[in-house]
Amino acid sequence: MNFSSKLLENAVAEFAKLPGVGQKTALRLVLHLLNQEKTEVEKFSSSISKLRNEIQFCSICQNISDQAICEICASPKRDHTTICVVEDTRDVMAVQNTNQYNGVYHVLGGLISPMDGIGPSDLEVDSLVERIRENGVKEVIFALSATMEGDTTLFYLHKRLKDYNIIISTIARGIAFGGELEYVDEITLGRSIATRVPYESSLSR
Amino acid sequence: MNFSSKLLENAVAEFAKLPGVGQKTALRLVLHLLNQEKTEVEKFSSSISKLRNEIQFCSICQNISDQAICEICASPKRDHTTICVVEDTRDVMAVQNTNQYNGVYHVLGGLISPMDGIGPSDLEVDSLVERIRENGVKEVIFALSATMEGDTTLFYLHKRLKDYNIIISTIARGIAFGGELEYVDEITLGRSIATRVPYESSLSR
Repeated sequence: MNFSSKLLENAVAEFAKLPGVGQKTALRLVLHLLNQEKTEVEKFSSSISKLRNEIQFCSICQNISDQAICEICASPKRDHTTICVVEDTRDVMAVQNTNQYNGVYHVLGGLISPMDGIGPSDLEVDSLVERIRENGVKEVIFALSATMEGDTTLFYLHKRLKDYNIIISTIARGIAFGGELEYVDEITLGRSIATRVPYESSLSR
Repeated sequence: MNFSSKLLENAVAEFAKLPGVGQKTALRLVLHLLNQEKTEVEKFSSSISKLRNEIQFCSICQNISDQAICEICASPKRDHTTICVVEDTRDVMAVQNTNQYNGVYHVLGGLISPMDGIGPSDLEVDSLVERIRENGVKEVIFALSATMEGDTTLFYLHKRLKDYNIIISTIARGIAFGGELEYVDEITLGRSIATRVPYESSLSR
């Protein structure tokens, strides 16, 4: 592209580094910001630099937090004997939004992915084992993506945790609510037949 | 959404104000930034605030520029007697990329749109008239979008400029190169028949 200004070119280049944002979208976003009030743009830019500089990670569950210990880990109302293990903070939000879970979380910060050079030591695995060893945890629920990386991580963590006296479970996989059978892939359908549940217990969900 | 951090929530809210960016995309972008080095994020955020605070608009053509007069208006190699009138800086870039135009530009900064409360006084119309009156301009080419707003603006500007001794033209409308007839809408096709050109002159383009 033929920019008439170096400042514009820089800003577009920075925006185009974001995932899923190409040059044309970046230009559109930058021109939008250019049309806003100076104070608005200042708010935008400072919210980002503040976030990066001041954010903390909960020392217990490693979730993003404003304090040293996050609200969930600090809450006496939650069941601290059940830990839901997730990949990142988005998954914490997803599980929280279901209103079906009252335990605490543990954020791994990623999934094992040899292709991307991410091994167990890059994730918050040791801190999870530590929590289980020390704090009378009764159940660990894995809520990981049903991908190759998710399954690898699940397999590894199960091996690390199976000798502790805890229940290890993983979220159910199957047909989504509202899903039509003819569009479900064979693996999901096959597994959901193999792991069928009694009708009565399916109602109680 | 249930954010675990106010800083995160603020940054997501700021991103979600951008056009075409919803809450989920905003969260994805913010988490991406959170995974980057501090210096990278600082570069991102400062490029934006710098752009907004230091950008200038060329005092002749009103295009975005780093100097008081933009490169195109300052260039002695360009034909300063032909002005191409466009909506915004993106259109300057689009025309520049064709390598077919060697004149100068005039950026209106928008199009007349009564629905959005944008009238001629909100656009750089007077500065255009001024340029034509004073500087021996021979031709004005309108390169505006073929929308209701573009046509309204064209109609208004033509009325304002028709008494000056200049050629007023507008970019050709018709079927795009590579376009298949059966997919062209009736209005475009009808107009392109009405404004047909001799075969020889179509070759010389």
